[in-house]
Amino acid sequence: MAELLLSDLCERLKKEGVGARLEGEDRAVRAVNSLEEAAEGEITFLANEKYLSALRDTRASAVIVGEGVKAPERLSTIRCSDPYAGIAVAIVHIHGHRRHPQWGISEKATIHPTAKLGQGANIGEYVSIAADVTIGDDCTIYPGCYVAEGARLGNECTLFPNVVVYDRCELGNRVTVHAGSVIGEDGLGYAPVGDQWLKIPQVGKVVVGDDVEIGANCTIDRATLGRTEIGAGTKFGNVVVIGHGAKVGPDCLFVGLVGVAGSATVERHVTLAGQVGIAGHLTVGKDARVGAQAGVTGDVKAGSELWGTPAVPVADAKRAAIALQKLPEAMKRLKVLEQEVEELKAALGRT
Amino acid sequence: MAELLLSDLCERLKKEGVGARLEGEDRAVRAVNSLEEAAEGEITFLANEKYLSALRDTRASAVIVGEGVKAPERLSTIRCSDPYAGIAVAIVHIHGHRRHPQWGISEKATIHPTAKLGQGANIGEYVSIAADVTIGDDCTIYPGCYVAEGARLGNECTLFPNVVVYDRCELGNRVTVHAGSVIGEDGLGYAPVGDQWLKIPQVGKVVVGDDVEIGANCTIDRATLGRTEIGAGTKFGNVVVIGHGAKVGPDCLFVGLVGVAGSATVERHVTLAGQVGIAGHLTVGKDARVGAQAGVTGDVKAGSELWGTPAVPVADAKRAAIALQKLPEAMKRLKVLEQEVEELKAALGRT
Amino acid sequence: MAELLLSDLCERLKKEGVGARLEGEDRAVRAVNSLEEAAEGEITFLANEKYLSALRDTRASAVIVGEGVKAPERLSTIRCSDPYAGIAVAIVHIHGHRRHPQWGISEKATIHPTAKLGQGANIGEYVSIAADVTIGDDCTIYPGCYVAEGARLGNECTLFPNVVVYDRCELGNRVTVHAGSVIGEDGLGYAPVGDQWLKIPQVGKVVVGDDVEIGANCTIDRATLGRTEIGAGTKFGNVVVIGHGAKVGPDCLFVGLVGVAGSATVERHVTLAGQVGIAGHLTVGKDARVGAQAGVTGDVKAGSELWGTPAVPVADAKRAAIALQKLPEAMKRLKVLEQEVEELKAALGRT
Repeated sequence: MAELLLSDLCERLKKEGVGARLEGEDRAVRAVNSLEEAAEGEITFLANEKYLSALRDTRASAVIVGEGVKAPERLSTIRCSDPYAGIAVAIVHIHGHRRHPQWGISEKATIHPTAKLGQGANIGEYVSIAADVTIGDDCTIYPGCYVAEGARLGNECTLFPNVVVYDRCELGNRVTVHAGSVIGEDGLGYAPVGDQWLKIPQVGKVVVGDDVEIGANCTIDRATLGRTEIGAGTKFGNVVVIGHGAKVGPDCLFVGLVGVAGSATVERHVTLAGQVGIAGHLTVGKDARVGAQAGVTGDVKAGSELWGTPAVPVADAKRAAIALQKLPEAMKRLKVLEQEVEELKAALGRT
Repeated sequence: MAELLLSDLCERLKKEGVGARLEGEDRAVRAVNSLEEAAEGEITFLANEKYLSALRDTRASAVIVGEGVKAPERLSTIRCSDPYAGIAVAIVHIHGHRRHPQWGISEKATIHPTAKLGQGANIGEYVSIAADVTIGDDCTIYPGCYVAEGARLGNECTLFPNVVVYDRCELGNRVTVHAGSVIGEDGLGYAPVGDQWLKIPQVGKVVVGDDVEIGANCTIDRATLGRTEIGAGTKFGNVVVIGHGAKVGPDCLFVGLVGVAGSATVERHVTLAGQVGIAGHLTVGKDARVGAQAGVTGDVKAGSELWGTPAVPVADAKRAAIALQKLPEAMKRLKVLEQEVEELKAALGRT
Repeated sequence: MAELLLSDLCERLKKEGVGARLEGEDRAVRAVNSLEEAAEGEITFLANEKYLSALRDTRASAVIVGEGVKAPERLSTIRCSDPYAGIAVAIVHIHGHRRHPQWGISEKATIHPTAKLGQGANIGEYVSIAADVTIGDDCTIYPGCYVAEGARLGNECTLFPNVVVYDRCELGNRVTVHAGSVIGEDGLGYAPVGDQWLKIPQVGKVVVGDDVEIGANCTIDRATLGRTEIGAGTKFGNVVVIGHGAKVGPDCLFVGLVGVAGSATVERHVTLAGQVGIAGHLTVGKDARVGAQAGVTGDVKAGSELWGTPAVPVADAKRAAIALQKLPEAMKRLKVLEQEVEELKAALGRT
């Protein structure tokens, strides 16, 4: 940990292209903390206006806020065009990224003689590296991981404990995989023969781009043939499940419990909220955003915002959800109207 | 296993505050079993009236039932105000809790010299205990677990195989974590910078209270800052996914595949059924119950029962679901009415 | 890999009972590949007419297609009554099934002296086989697996890395379990005592039939009493979650993120699409098919096709979903009608 002067933080933010200016006293902060838990000498942030009352009560000495937010006068305030980016830069400087244990190559790991390890390999106990694996420079592999035959990792990758990479799968540079995730298991590929399921050997692989981060207990199927792809810069939460042959573009963000079925294409910079499902053999266009629990059953245009099952434009989904709550009462009104119209018809001799 | 006299079971139940009385012959039972599989000399139970016909056919010698249930006369019957509690007490007495293998501290485990282990440590092969870890008395850690730097476990904890506890996370006393679960992985914390995602280091932790039981392959994110909390006595099924900074209260029950997004607050004694999703930054009040697959998108009042996406009071959700099935036909009726009203208007010269 | 003559492939298919005839030149192919990635000398297939344009552009030398599909003349074409079965047979012949590393019984595995291993045991490093385990012939157990006390595996089983089998669970012959899956963890069995949850020891087990394949990171609860069952020939995708005491029949196919609650019965040859949930204590009849994200809340008749939450016949669900999108506008039409009827009533002196 390192102290950080608020004026220095502003300078760093500007260098990253994030607007920032200091309001109030310049001072050194020694930790970043949440509104509720921050103490004297620490910096906190407000990114969601729901927490304005917590901002009033915080014991922090400084705060990062967006435009238009009024902070208590006792706090030194960094006003920032993007408070999340502000806090990210502050955390990296003060707390740094996680420092991994340094095992070198543990004597309790099992490295096949044909495997090639780059410089700076940091490999924990009970790791298995199988035949013909290639691992780049400065990779950290935590205990209990298994990297199967012919798999390839680029430079500066991190596999947290108990990650499994199946045979011949490929990870780019600076890929991080959290604990328990599995990359390259067989897809659900069977041919129906009568009432039984004939296994189609899954001879493809998974290719993960640079700077991808994958949460804990995710599963990414290898392709039946060819590749399942995860584009560079994409980030997955926990328990994201990707079907065989899916192509996920770069810079996507998938929240926990998302499922993408086989052979689906998800283009660049798509956001899928928690528990979303994407059906197979369709395309979700770039920059699309899909709300929590939605089920996408058809192609999605670039830039769309969808919600619901089947997923429709979010404004339509919300309108329909509100109308649905009024439907039982509308059914009664419909019945009353039918009676009244019958009576009117009778009165006019038109039955 | 131990035999148990039915009259003794009644006494034990009364001591636990559960009403119970024996109807029919007192006898010793040697095992607890399901209605279908129980044999002569065994005790079974009926807690769901759907299974009344199985009760008629069971080969068990005794049965635990609730008030108002008529059991066959040949069965000795313990009538119990809470049949589930009755069967729990019977199982604990006759079968006991699972007995773990006794490894002592396996020579094939890797314990960092700075780690502190309490008395009675029972640690299997291929376990890694990292630097500055503290583990209380009488803990059992199965093979393949990883407990990272600075993590703390209380007394009488059990980690089943391949559990991972990330750095600095804290488990209370008598915490049980089933196989493959991950506690304290990084949350999905990124600041959007242009179309890319800038990682916000996740420097918080997870704090799990006493007597928590966590199912298999769950994931609980560490907080960005501060703590993700799981309250004492809370029980999770399998593949429960908790986002960073969420606060889950005590005595909650979450069924499989539940997702709770970041910074959500779930108060005491909340029940979430299977595949429920809770959006971020909201509060689910104490004693609330949320039905399977529901998606909670706003604050929930204490004691509510909700269902649907977006979640609404369960009675409303059911009414809406029934009305929805009648909607296509109602649309036709609406169209007919419109034509009839047009005709009436024409007949009255009011177009 | 082996080359395969197209006329030989036709013969093999006919032997398996799949109709097939060769159109165009007979030639040898050396690999199976996807439409996009296939090269000269390789065979590809078309099973979904969405990809007809990719068929026109493929560089493959041969293709397997169904009846009625027109393939480019330059391609040798195998016309097949079931293109998926055709490609399965081709892949098995040319590429074969995955070949596992051969460890014999690794010296770095831990085998309890009371465990019985069959002939041809292939057991990787860091595997733990506990007391009284029985393992059949020709089983492969990858590194990091744990097989608990008294568990039984049949012949030719494969456990991929970090699979956990709890005590006394039983797997049949030719069972495959992908990485990180857990079989036999405790079910979510608690008796409510006041606001707290009293654990009901889970003393049952899991019994998995022959020829079952289970995806990665699945969890299958042991029964409270008796058995959780997975029928022979059933196939699971990833992160399938099965509750305690559920009975899943033979030849079922469950896609990723499916949840089946405790004590549910799913009969033979049922298909559950992604993220489907099945409530507890109900029966899904044989040959039923349930669409993605559906929530089944009641018994399902054999052969039904359902969708939606609560699940209804798929045609009804689709009609309702379409009508729901028109509902907000219908509400306006209803209001207009009410005003018009009021005016008509007034005009007729009938208010």
